[in-house]
Amino acid sequence: MNYLGLGKKELKKELDIQQSRYEKYMAMGLTLDMTRGKPCAEQLKLSEPMLSDSILGDYRSENGTDCRNYGILAGLPEARTFMGELLGVPGENIICGGNSSLNMMYDTISTFMLFGVSEDENDRPWFEDKDRKFICPVPGYDRHFVITQQFGFKLIPVDIGPDGPDMDEVERIVRDDPSVKGIWSVPKYSNPTGYVYSDECIQRFARMKCAAKDFRIFWDDAYTVHFINGSPAKQLSLFDECVKAGNPERVIMFGSTSKITFPGAGISALAADKRTIDFLLSKISKQTIGPDKLNQLRHVKFLKNVDGVVEHMKKHAVIMKPKFDAVGQIFENEFGAPREGQLSWTKPEGGYFICCRTGDGMASEVLSMCRRCGVAFTPAGSTHPYKIDPTDSYVRIAPSYPDVDQIKSAVEIFCICVKIVLINRLLAV
Amino acid sequence: MNYLGLGKKELKKELDIQQSRYEKYMAMGLTLDMTRGKPCAEQLKLSEPMLSDSILGDYRSENGTDCRNYGILAGLPEARTFMGELLGVPGENIICGGNSSLNMMYDTISTFMLFGVSEDENDRPWFEDKDRKFICPVPGYDRHFVITQQFGFKLIPVDIGPDGPDMDEVERIVRDDPSVKGIWSVPKYSNPTGYVYSDECIQRFARMKCAAKDFRIFWDDAYTVHFINGSPAKQLSLFDECVKAGNPERVIMFGSTSKITFPGAGISALAADKRTIDFLLSKISKQTIGPDKLNQLRHVKFLKNVDGVVEHMKKHAVIMKPKFDAVGQIFENEFGAPREGQLSWTKPEGGYFICCRTGDGMASEVLSMCRRCGVAFTPAGSTHPYKIDPTDSYVRIAPSYPDVDQIKSAVEIFCICVKIVLINRLLAV
Repeated sequence: MNYLGLGKKELKKELDIQQSRYEKYMAMGLTLDMTRGKPCAEQLKLSEPMLSDSILGDYRSENGTDCRNYGILAGLPEARTFMGELLGVPGENIICGGNSSLNMMYDTISTFMLFGVSEDENDRPWFEDKDRKFICPVPGYDRHFVITQQFGFKLIPVDIGPDGPDMDEVERIVRDDPSVKGIWSVPKYSNPTGYVYSDECIQRFARMKCAAKDFRIFWDDAYTVHFINGSPAKQLSLFDECVKAGNPERVIMFGSTSKITFPGAGISALAADKRTIDFLLSKISKQTIGPDKLNQLRHVKFLKNVDGVVEHMKKHAVIMKPKFDAVGQIFENEFGAPREGQLSWTKPEGGYFICCRTGDGMASEVLSMCRRCGVAFTPAGSTHPYKIDPTDSYVRIAPSYPDVDQIKSAVEIFCICVKIVLINRLLAV
Repeated sequence: MNYLGLGKKELKKELDIQQSRYEKYMAMGLTLDMTRGKPCAEQLKLSEPMLSDSILGDYRSENGTDCRNYGILAGLPEARTFMGELLGVPGENIICGGNSSLNMMYDTISTFMLFGVSEDENDRPWFEDKDRKFICPVPGYDRHFVITQQFGFKLIPVDIGPDGPDMDEVERIVRDDPSVKGIWSVPKYSNPTGYVYSDECIQRFARMKCAAKDFRIFWDDAYTVHFINGSPAKQLSLFDECVKAGNPERVIMFGSTSKITFPGAGISALAADKRTIDFLLSKISKQTIGPDKLNQLRHVKFLKNVDGVVEHMKKHAVIMKPKFDAVGQIFENEFGAPREGQLSWTKPEGGYFICCRTGDGMASEVLSMCRRCGVAFTPAGSTHPYKIDPTDSYVRIAPSYPDVDQIKSAVEIFCICVKIVLINRLLAV
């Protein structure tokens, strides 16, 4: 597809073709939802054995605790070890929580807002800094951005590329401004691009100079084992690199089993240096008596350890790979090869999303057309702070929930809409 | 037992008797834990059928939602209806949460700290009021008090009696000071007294004049169905009374199934007027995608409705009543009749605790002696703000966890220690 070389007449002919394809789809009255990274029914089925009552045995943890009763603030010891394996840290650096790692991120920032990042009296509550700011790599995850928006941070976008955020820019922003308190990151199979941060990027995160002593990296390792080809991507541990760089308190990592077992009924975890863990626990000890230990026990009994998880994720990959392939195939069929900056899409090796970049200023119109045709994508702008993408070009494609045929139809419709919008613009010049 | 009428010689003789009883117990090397309101193994067994995988059926809620997947921020509709029945409010006034109502209380105050109680810009974040205060009925629940202590409130104690808090005092405190932001309350089978607030008290709560427009009553109806005799105590609904009084936003109610099913794996709920529910949901929508709906489904399938809960609680009562009776019996055997202000204890019709008042200035010493003998009670002072009971007289007895024989030994040891401390003081005069 190369419309730029076509004359008006040829463009009009092409427009007719695409419009008749669009109308054919319109007539089908489709309802397709590609909005969220939601596992499909077949994926949920993989974890049904976890709900068997026999898996809970005598309801006891390894240390003898009756998991039905109160207690164990930081989570079951074996659940901490298990989540620590996933995140690459010792169990003692883990707090294992309830069904939502997003909740742990929100609560951690809420704690820092009200009490600062430690007991040290120089670490003032972030609430008191009226000029507080947070770095948001773009395109990125909408639910991250709205958390810091709600807490009144000014959100600073920084572009992300295949190797991670633009670290020159990140280093520049954090160097001089003590009001820059943190950055969001999805380091592996990033949402929505699928990018895997490079080791160099991770080392620069660990070593960079921050004006704010209480600057924190919120490292949401949501897709750490969510490969679709072969095995999980290898990546340096930011936790280890921060220790080596003498900044052990800089990173707080998050993870969950939401997309390993059940999105609504998984377990979550937070990892940090011991001082931060102790500080957070001192606050959490007033918030709850402890997490749902029965569900933690279910998870450990079912998945066992990181090897068990990788085996389990291979089954997810069997379901997910054809869906990613279908999206890529339609894009290639319709558009040919991706062209950087004009019309491009990512080809992730894992995660839940593909990011398509339409031409600038086209995404909203394209997605409106899709919606009229019964296909819902994540709204344009969602990948950016304040839900405003200044280029109006980024579109997040979430292929997990629909089946392959539905995905093909949805992406085909998307491509048709891109073409129609593009031709109309060329004709209007 | 009336030592006041005895001479020194008789007192010394009595001291010898009690000390030899104490030493007999010392020699037994007991380890008895009466510290927390923790259900016993027999109680946990009552809810084991809830963990059967067959109870979850096809994992679907009434409205067809797959409970394993993401979504449903305010909780499953049938879980909201169910918790609403327990708390006496419509389901639409309920947010149904995870395994901890304490967590919902903490988060609600955290939200008010950071954002105020509503979208109204006159409702400033409580954080900004450096003089913020919270009323704590005493004796009361330590975990309530430490939440507001952590958030930097000045804690104001108000005495509680068999009909509820001293409402003259409460009305006086809230009338003139706009920095008084709230009050804790456990209205039925109160912790630790077992008192049931009277209807008059509830009406005064609903109608009282508050200087702070954003004054809120945190109504922890933790024991609403936890009767040990016959059926749950009837009580006016503060929710309804607040509506009638034109103060619908004044009360936020909390409840959970922690002591109905499993303390570590129950479900919780918060009830409030629609405006507050909507406000809280607008904040919670950034915190999580939704609660563990599988566990909510389990609960509704197992307990069904309020009648199902009452039937289930009768089984708890069969286990709990002999334990309460054992405590009362030992107190009567050892002390005779309770004497108001000197040596007294409550005789609850439900809940999890009995409150014993030793003579003033004796509780710490008595509990130290108990501890040396291997019996742990909730530490003296725990019933009061900052863990300081200025009278040093209140002791919380938690009889749920140990078996009846252990309870008898523990309470007997407690009584012996009270006697020894009292006689020593009389001898020292």
